Amino acid sequence: MNKTFEKLTPWLTKAYALNAALILFEWDNETEAPEAASALTAHAIETLSSEYYKTIINNDVKKLLKQLATETNLTDKERTILKDLQKQYDSLEPIPPVKYQAYQGLIARAPAIWAKAKASDDYRMFAPTLKEIIEYQKEFIDYRLKASKGKRRPYDLLLDDYEEGFTMQKLDVFFEMLKEEIIPLIQMVNEKKDKIDKSYNYRDYPLNLQKEFNRKLAKHLGFDFKRGVIKESVHPFTTNLHNKDVRITTAYHENNLESAIFSTIHESGHALYEMHIGDELTATPAGGGASMGMHEGQSRLFENNFGRSRDFWVPLFQDLKDTFPESLADTDLDTFILGINKSAPGLIRTESDELTYSLHIIIRYEIEKMIFEKNADIDKLPDIWNKKYKEYLGVTPKNASEGILQDIHWACGNFGYFPSYALGNAIAAQIYAHLKQVMPLDDYLKSGNFQPINEYLKDHIHRFGKTKTTNEILRDMMGEDFNPQYYIDYLKEKYETLYRYL
Amino acid sequence: MNKTFEKLTPWLTKAYALNAALILFEWDNETEAPEAASALTAHAIETLSSEYYKTIINNDVKKLLKQLATETNLTDKERTILKDLQKQYDSLEPIPPVKYQAYQGLIARAPAIWAKAKASDDYRMFAPTLKEIIEYQKEFIDYRLKASKGKRRPYDLLLDDYEEGFTMQKLDVFFEMLKEEIIPLIQMVNEKKDKIDKSYNYRDYPLNLQKEFNRKLAKHLGFDFKRGVIKESVHPFTTNLHNKDVRITTAYHENNLESAIFSTIHESGHALYEMHIGDELTATPAGGGASMGMHEGQSRLFENNFGRSRDFWVPLFQDLKDTFPESLADTDLDTFILGINKSAPGLIRTESDELTYSLHIIIRYEIEKMIFEKNADIDKLPDIWNKKYKEYLGVTPKNASEGILQDIHWACGNFGYFPSYALGNAIAAQIYAHLKQVMPLDDYLKSGNFQPINEYLKDHIHRFGKTKTTNEILRDMMGEDFNPQYYIDYLKEKYETLYRYL
Repeated sequence: MNKTFEKLTPWLTKAYALNAALILFEWDNETEAPEAASALTAHAIETLSSEYYKTIINNDVKKLLKQLATETNLTDKERTILKDLQKQYDSLEPIPPVKYQAYQGLIARAPAIWAKAKASDDYRMFAPTLKEIIEYQKEFIDYRLKASKGKRRPYDLLLDDYEEGFTMQKLDVFFEMLKEEIIPLIQMVNEKKDKIDKSYNYRDYPLNLQKEFNRKLAKHLGFDFKRGVIKESVHPFTTNLHNKDVRITTAYHENNLESAIFSTIHESGHALYEMHIGDELTATPAGGGASMGMHEGQSRLFENNFGRSRDFWVPLFQDLKDTFPESLADTDLDTFILGINKSAPGLIRTESDELTYSLHIIIRYEIEKMIFEKNADIDKLPDIWNKKYKEYLGVTPKNASEGILQDIHWACGNFGYFPSYALGNAIAAQIYAHLKQVMPLDDYLKSGNFQPINEYLKDHIHRFGKTKTTNEILRDMMGEDFNPQYYIDYLKEKYETLYRYL
Repeated sequence: MNKTFEKLTPWLTKAYALNAALILFEWDNETEAPEAASALTAHAIETLSSEYYKTIINNDVKKLLKQLATETNLTDKERTILKDLQKQYDSLEPIPPVKYQAYQGLIARAPAIWAKAKASDDYRMFAPTLKEIIEYQKEFIDYRLKASKGKRRPYDLLLDDYEEGFTMQKLDVFFEMLKEEIIPLIQMVNEKKDKIDKSYNYRDYPLNLQKEFNRKLAKHLGFDFKRGVIKESVHPFTTNLHNKDVRITTAYHENNLESAIFSTIHESGHALYEMHIGDELTATPAGGGASMGMHEGQSRLFENNFGRSRDFWVPLFQDLKDTFPESLADTDLDTFILGINKSAPGLIRTESDELTYSLHIIIRYEIEKMIFEKNADIDKLPDIWNKKYKEYLGVTPKNASEGILQDIHWACGNFGYFPSYALGNAIAAQIYAHLKQVMPLDDYLKSGNFQPINEYLKDHIHRFGKTKTTNEILRDMMGEDFNPQYYIDYLKEKYETLYRYL
């Protein structure tokens, strides 16, 4: 290990331990803590958070980072850790601590205000808070731009926080392509949607049997129960302490078979990524996924490209029928495949299907761009939102809770985050196309043999953690940067094939 | 708040947060973490532990403690916190850090060595490690005695770490009384034990039905599920983050009805104590139970004095029979009450009954006294152990795993800890006698009305946290210090009544 880098070790060790504690508290809060606990436990969490901040942002670490900036004798891992730390410095240090603290307080209160406004269908209840959050964000962007003496656009700075290198210039190209190709496809699909009978999905599916099937499903995909846990929570998610402790949740609904199944597959995709991170990288800042988009790329690959294909269900469908013999008595594999791929434009992002999903993202992206680049009037956001839904998806929200207030992200200050979801879909399609080239993917899916698929993903993507960027991974694996054409081709081929005889 | 005391707040806040994280990691490790996780997670736990140590033991805190030692203007809470901190200082500070660290390493390795020796029935595998632990402990006692210039006996110092004020002088009196009165009682009971048919207990009790019944049982006792969680683990235990997050575990066995029931009642007794700690004390060093013995006093009160009484089962037994109609078909309430009170001398402490339990403790106490006061030969401990079991309980271990190696405590360095268990039994009996005086306890139990019982325990014991000692609590509540006569009277009356007609 580089001698100067070695001096960083105590800070990294402490930061890792504090972060692991914060992750465990969050997991516990979502899955287990008693309902009266949160107010008092929040004090402990705040203290640990501020200790984490002090562990990373302090003069000793700053000096070491400066010394190490000119160091050439560093490993990939060391360079990645330094880059990650430097990024945290660059985004946090220019902001006056008093302002940062006030903003943290605001962000802690905002989700409850948002939740109340959503429950009351009243955007005006949330608008003042949203304005405050946005004002802070704009001010922070100014501080950061001044400190870096850079010429970047404000919204590009936010985008870069989540997805390095994906600027508005790149995203505009991607999203314009998507709109042009997907909107007509949606219209075609929408006209035929009533020809698909999906009533089987809403019959009785006892929760304990669903749990049993979903555990088998995760195992089928390669989820390693010695290194992982599956539990329940209201909103499914994946988290991890390191590559030998990866946890996912699913939410079960008695009268919806699909809901749990596709969240199990989705979260298993995330989980496999984390389980496959290299031993030398895990529990360090170089040990997560390459980017949010690449992470989402894995979950979407499993959920949609694999999980909604006919091949995937060949080895599983009989078991599913045997688990629910009555509710699935009259449903055959082809009906099921059409059902799980039924597409219809809707209002709610999280309930949307594979085809329409990215349009929900585009709407949010365009609005965020207006906020940070054009000073959009925050009071007018509901109108803008509704107009775009009408234009792109042909639907109009009846109220704010199924419109502008549906997502929690803005109440948490997460601007610039949404595009990663759409990038994930496109990255998944690109990897899927590549896998079909380099291995007999259909045969593997049909025989339920995930071992070679997972080995390939591990070797070419997962094990590198953050030591390669998303584009480096794609380039090294398939000789090509991110290319959204694969996604468009995939959607067109899939839906044209599926709907051909309807 | 006292101005000087206020300066301690940041240290207390940080120590609380770190300790809460450590508690959560331990809970998670026992109840949920995947099996491959522990090696890596241990690094995070070690880091948080050492941060906790540094937060408490440092020159700033030391200076504040010195300043506050002469302060007269302090609240009960502040005085209790200072006393607790000072106790930690007095026990840790005199020990050279290098030695302490080496000892911590030994203690971290020792349980695995002990477990292997136990699995191999080979005391010699563990003896060298045990010797090393004891040598460190003796050395630490020397450092502490020198630093305090006190004239205390070495073993008294260890006893005081767990149970303030309970010296050998007091325990000798207690234990001699017990031996004198209990050993003849055990002989009487042992002669009649075959007249009790307890075969019902070992029939089929489906786990899911047991879980359901045990949840109802905890609720019956007053366990508040809004502030608590019940889960499963191999060894049942209670833990808490604060008074609004209290967690217990139970272990279920398909062919043993009693096992889970009495651990649920026992842990609920601990849990109620923690749920009733005053809001102003919880999440501070003044916010635990008064002492280990007082805590065990609550769990034993619920488990034995209440839980093994006929009155207790009057409102519950029909529900138990309805839950397991086949296995309990031919069992009536009287048979059940005799069954759950069946006593027979055995080899294993954790499986022993209410009557013989304290004799297991006396044996351990006498051996620990020999180690620290008479330099007992560690190689000879198995012989000493076996002789005492023969003498007090009339049984002889066939091997080390059911003899000297049965408990993990010594491998963790917990010498002086066992007596608290016996004290807990005696404290429970004393409180039980008092409750019978001040309230219609039998009626409350018979009607399943725990509300007034819990209110009384909360008002007179629980809410004070550590601000009163065990003896102060007893004295203020019933005008009398700890008095083991209640325990002896209770056992004699109970077993003479139960066994009268057998």
